[in-house]
Amino acid sequence: MALIVQKFGGTSVANPEKIKAVANRVLSCKNEGHRMVVVLSAMAGETNRLVSLANQMQAIPDPREMDVLLSTGEQATVALFAMAIKEAGYEAVSLLGDQVKIITDTMHTKARIQSIDTDLILRHLDQGRVVTVAGFQGITEDNDITTLGRGGSDTTAVALAAALAADQCEIFTDVEGVYTTDPNVCAAARKIDKISYEEMLELASLGAKVLDIRSVGFAKRYKVPLHVRSTFTNTEGTWVVEEDESMESMLVSGVTYSKNEARITVSKVPDTPGTASKIFWPISDAGIIVDMIIQNTRAGDMTDMTFTVPRTDYKKALTIVQKVAEEIGAESVTGSDNIAKISIVGVGMRNHSGIATTMFHVLAKEGINIMMISTSEIKVSCVIEEKYTELAVRALHEAFALDRAELANA
Amino acid sequence: MALIVQKFGGTSVANPEKIKAVANRVLSCKNEGHRMVVVLSAMAGETNRLVSLANQMQAIPDPREMDVLLSTGEQATVALFAMAIKEAGYEAVSLLGDQVKIITDTMHTKARIQSIDTDLILRHLDQGRVVTVAGFQGITEDNDITTLGRGGSDTTAVALAAALAADQCEIFTDVEGVYTTDPNVCAAARKIDKISYEEMLELASLGAKVLDIRSVGFAKRYKVPLHVRSTFTNTEGTWVVEEDESMESMLVSGVTYSKNEARITVSKVPDTPGTASKIFWPISDAGIIVDMIIQNTRAGDMTDMTFTVPRTDYKKALTIVQKVAEEIGAESVTGSDNIAKISIVGVGMRNHSGIATTMFHVLAKEGINIMMISTSEIKVSCVIEEKYTELAVRALHEAFALDRAELANA
Repeated sequence: MALIVQKFGGTSVANPEKIKAVANRVLSCKNEGHRMVVVLSAMAGETNRLVSLANQMQAIPDPREMDVLLSTGEQATVALFAMAIKEAGYEAVSLLGDQVKIITDTMHTKARIQSIDTDLILRHLDQGRVVTVAGFQGITEDNDITTLGRGGSDTTAVALAAALAADQCEIFTDVEGVYTTDPNVCAAARKIDKISYEEMLELASLGAKVLDIRSVGFAKRYKVPLHVRSTFTNTEGTWVVEEDESMESMLVSGVTYSKNEARITVSKVPDTPGTASKIFWPISDAGIIVDMIIQNTRAGDMTDMTFTVPRTDYKKALTIVQKVAEEIGAESVTGSDNIAKISIVGVGMRNHSGIATTMFHVLAKEGINIMMISTSEIKVSCVIEEKYTELAVRALHEAFALDRAELANA
Repeated sequence: MALIVQKFGGTSVANPEKIKAVANRVLSCKNEGHRMVVVLSAMAGETNRLVSLANQMQAIPDPREMDVLLSTGEQATVALFAMAIKEAGYEAVSLLGDQVKIITDTMHTKARIQSIDTDLILRHLDQGRVVTVAGFQGITEDNDITTLGRGGSDTTAVALAAALAADQCEIFTDVEGVYTTDPNVCAAARKIDKISYEEMLELASLGAKVLDIRSVGFAKRYKVPLHVRSTFTNTEGTWVVEEDESMESMLVSGVTYSKNEARITVSKVPDTPGTASKIFWPISDAGIIVDMIIQNTRAGDMTDMTFTVPRTDYKKALTIVQKVAEEIGAESVTGSDNIAKISIVGVGMRNHSGIATTMFHVLAKEGINIMMISTSEIKVSCVIEEKYTELAVRALHEAFALDRAELANA
């Protein structure tokens, strides 16, 4: 008998029929003798409906009240789900963030979980109940409702699984698992059976949308085995687990891309101490996150500084940098938001040289110019022109033989 | 500087525009220097939407989960309202039943308030905030969400006003106040300026829908001055207050009617001790509330027993009574759901005889047969054929001169 946490997203509980289907799925696990904790998102569309109401009230909706509003979505779903379980003749109880005592910090709309009290959940489980917990929400020490931001229900599920020392945490979604790359871009994309937390963290941060990065971090820290799978089939999905030897034989596990990028170059910056901080302080002050940074030394006491920011912040960043460039006497500021970041990820890279070189070679062979490069122990990222994104993904996927499990990277 | 509790119903907060209008109305009071506590219902239509979802999940929705579901309606409204206040440049905070600690019993979907903690509200008021509290909801000692049943937001408002020792409690609604009778039935109906708690209790229990009867009971017990008025005009409404001398000069304050009635007669019941309890036990066991009961003695050891039940329970009650009648050897069971109850209410009746006689006379003059009569210190009710309802209301309204404030009952 295992303790299993299952999380179902908004499309899985989009209407009463789908909620019933989820209830049946949960009950079939319960009937195998498992203790079930079920985390649910708001019904698909509900969060957008609420956000739209908020936007009609206030130009920038108050974050505390936004959380009071948004948390109603998950509250409704868990109540309906508990009804469905009861209608099927089983015991169930719904619990909200304040009832479980999912304590978070006070950063409304993007709060972080600080602690979870498992007493109440365990008491209900001991009484044979299916326990359903509203995802995405918590409370502060002062009993104010908070929400966890995008992908927050994944985080709720993994945090609960960690706190409960659950045997596994299953994330049900509308795809069959984690793929070697985006199947919409590359038809040869293959579902990955098993992947390490580290790789999944890189994939999530580099553009893969299947799992929220914070939930992967939680899973890694507390060694929670994660199973990402489809709500609509019974196929096994992808297990996200601790690294093992079999994974190292794979040089590359996945290829990912992000088009949410923009590049800014400051040319002929006087190369004196403190220049970089003069450029990057005002940007981070404006809440803009800088991703890659490259500095090239020129002849003389000059240097070129290139970096990337989220595409949505491009214009804001450009204005800031143009002002700074004038102040520090840089020659010019240029930039582009027609770029993309292509990455390959794999724990096997650690023990093999030449993976990056292969990547550069593959891109060169396709005539794709590399503008920026960034590497870590288990990934290589290249910034290229956006129009080459799909071509690059397919070429790299083929070059590393990701379409054939048995041959991959051989 | 007064402390004022204002309550706005679902039609008053039906959409973002209306919520903004309510916010402006509240702020104009705040700008006069008052401390404002605002109780809101769910947006019109929202509760029905949620009930419909619940009915799709479970034949008889679980009451605990129903309360978790329904309480989201008011939760959303108070968040949106607080945003509207903030957008107008003022401070505001929304509070839910569990945050205020509106403790109720455990009777889900029709819970009763047991205590209210005013600390948090007062703290926010002291900081100059408009405090908005979700109506209709509370929590049990075990931190389970409860709802207060139909009209529950009125009860929340009055209970808060009582707990806070508020100077007044204003119930904003879609009519201008309490009328001498239903204006839809009698064009001469006149808004009452001032009415006693006792009269309002009778009117509410006899069919007037403007105020929930429990809220009037609360107001009476804690001497909270109630002001029932329209959201959509600035006209003074009706004050529901302690009885004073001016009220006694009015013999009749209002005429009311209820079509939610059905009559059952058990004929030729053996007139032995215990017969009545044999008839009424199984009815109350089935959760059916019996209103009027009349017993006529016949010649011999026989009696006729007539009583009324809510029309929605008529068929269920009839089946029960037919079974009992057989057991106790009664001759027959007959009934009708084409009846109505017409009532006149007024504290002045206490000191004047002949009011009931006048009522019977007025009905007789219109050719309306009276089937049952029931009286209390300040009301007279008659059951008549339903088809005469409007005629009876208009005739009584005119006979007691309710259309002319200065002449009323003269």
